[in-house]
Amino acid sequence: MIKLHGFSASNYYNVPKLALLEKGIEFEEVLSYTGVGPKYKPEYLDKSPLGKVPALETPEGFISESRAILEYIERAHPEPSLLPATPFGIAKVQELSQFIELYFELVARRLIPNLLGGTQPDPALLKEVEASLNKAVAALPKLSTFEQFAYGDQFTLADIGAILNLPIVRNVGKAFMDRDPLSEVPGLDAYCKRMEERPHVKKVRADAAENRPHFMAHLKELYGF
Amino acid sequence: MIKLHGFSASNYYNVPKLALLEKGIEFEEVLSYTGVGPKYKPEYLDKSPLGKVPALETPEGFISESRAILEYIERAHPEPSLLPATPFGIAKVQELSQFIELYFELVARRLIPNLLGGTQPDPALLKEVEASLNKAVAALPKLSTFEQFAYGDQFTLADIGAILNLPIVRNVGKAFMDRDPLSEVPGLDAYCKRMEERPHVKKVRADAAENRPHFMAHLKELYGF
Repeated sequence: MIKLHGFSASNYYNVPKLALLEKGIEFEEVLSYTGVGPKYKPEYLDKSPLGKVPALETPEGFISESRAILEYIERAHPEPSLLPATPFGIAKVQELSQFIELYFELVARRLIPNLLGGTQPDPALLKEVEASLNKAVAALPKLSTFEQFAYGDQFTLADIGAILNLPIVRNVGKAFMDRDPLSEVPGLDAYCKRMEERPHVKKVRADAAENRPHFMAHLKELYGF
Repeated sequence: MIKLHGFSASNYYNVPKLALLEKGIEFEEVLSYTGVGPKYKPEYLDKSPLGKVPALETPEGFISESRAILEYIERAHPEPSLLPATPFGIAKVQELSQFIELYFELVARRLIPNLLGGTQPDPALLKEVEASLNKAVAALPKLSTFEQFAYGDQFTLADIGAILNLPIVRNVGKAFMDRDPLSEVPGLDAYCKRMEERPHVKKVRADAAENRPHFMAHLKELYGF
């Protein structure tokens, strides 16, 4: 059976986890914090070369990087599909997923140390992050109206990316910018609410909530906060 | 006919360009600098929402983000394939491509303003970049021996990623670190030399060299350097 290594409080971990749940693929979860902090166990580096979470254990070996793991899941278990039927549709779903990851998630992530540590970010960094997020917020409606799903008329990998990689922007916005930048994207709040009603999304959120205290205890041990 | 919008001095532009050349797909190049600097032409934002280069014009519409464009090219024109035959192989190629993009290219890119402007980087930033590159250099051999190709026994998207996204690391290393970090990766120098002998890689390099003075003149106009 496929094994997913990592921990449920990680949004990167939850990307392939939600894909596996939505496709109805049996898998085992292997709790591993080795991707967090400097104390990598050397044997984990054979699974994930930078010690990052998640890693997928398949009969043929390990795969790291969420997007590569999604590629495996989708190709090895094509039905039910989490991609549109045409090359153009598939590319648009990847474009939107990539856009959310690069210009929202990776940008907001720069303030995670402050969010977790309860400290104020450096003003220059905060200004940079806010400017980048504003640009991305203005551009996002070119890629999706969020009327039904993130792209087209079915649940796809773009929805998984949006549901799991956008909340960090809300958290960072509310904590340090006195506003939620995502609320300025037409249709996005209502879309997110709808997606949260999906049973597998609820399961991912419940598991994340359950894991969070353990994860925070682990962080405290590593960094003292 | 497919049209690729952007300019040949951009490594992001060259990723889909090399894929199109290797697959023998006819395409037209449309010179566009709109992804560079603040003066985006609003009509370009319908093609590429953040004004970024490249954008691919297909009969069904525009696609931005190099990796999404690759997805379209590979799905719409599957032969000759730039991916291995198995789901696991495909995922490993994507993992390696992603690894090179995130932990080499995006890291070294932080020093591009200094490289282009001929200025010294901020010491704290340089230290951060060097530490990240050292980690990536130590981890890369877990993903590839670079014995023949980047992955497996055929030319794939991982080779395209390696050839086009790694040189920036050499340039940044030589300019600011007094060394080439990539030379510490076993097999990588010899691999890169072999890849540079490929006719389509030579074509991409020649086009880049031809475009570079125009691109630099464009930058000078925008930023004054």
